[in-house]
Amino acid sequence: MLVVHVHVQVKPQDLPAFLAETRRNAAASLREPGVRRFDVLQREDQPEHVVLSEVYADQAAADAHKQTEHYARWRDAVAPMMAAPRASTRFAAAFPEADGW
Amino acid sequence: MLVVHVHVQVKPQDLPAFLAETRRNAAASLREPGVRRFDVLQREDQPEHVVLSEVYADQAAADAHKQTEHYARWRDAVAPMMAAPRASTRFAAAFPEADGW
Repeated sequence: MLVVHVHVQVKPQDLPAFLAETRRNAAASLREPGVRRFDVLQREDQPEHVVLSEVYADQAAADAHKQTEHYARWRDAVAPMMAAPRASTRFAAAFPEADGW
Repeated sequence: MLVVHVHVQVKPQDLPAFLAETRRNAAASLREPGVRRFDVLQREDQPEHVVLSEVYADQAAADAHKQTEHYARWRDAVAPMMAAPRASTRFAAAFPEADGW
């Protein structure tokens, strides 16, 4: 399992629009066969710091996600809403087992 | 929904024992009524950097977790395995809706 945390610092005035676009992308992403989860999190102490927690079956599923129309729409829509370039961190899952996601 | 990411820098020689204790704690935690998820992640570029991604129904569920025997065992067992104090970040969930976890 491949887990990716994408950290985004959103311009405060764009937060509602960013969340709307991101929820739309997340819901569509969950219908991809290789996407296990697509959560959208806001830091309690800094709601403009949004983390996308994406879980893919494997690297091929992550690559396929980047080819979807909903990803392209999201990428282009939110680009001007970011206060800084987004940063990703990749993880391997130590728990649960592969069938637990 | 309350999401907590706990970042732990594990002493390299203790990584197998840390993961064993942490998987045990995670599995037991998933049996608590207010715990929705308890994932254990290792950074791809730095496997000793472990993130516990814990999802609770609410603050009361997070508080109840800290009262369990499995939490106490984990806390005491792994304390000497950490290369630095652990750090937690708290998030609210913007997606999915409460029934999607």
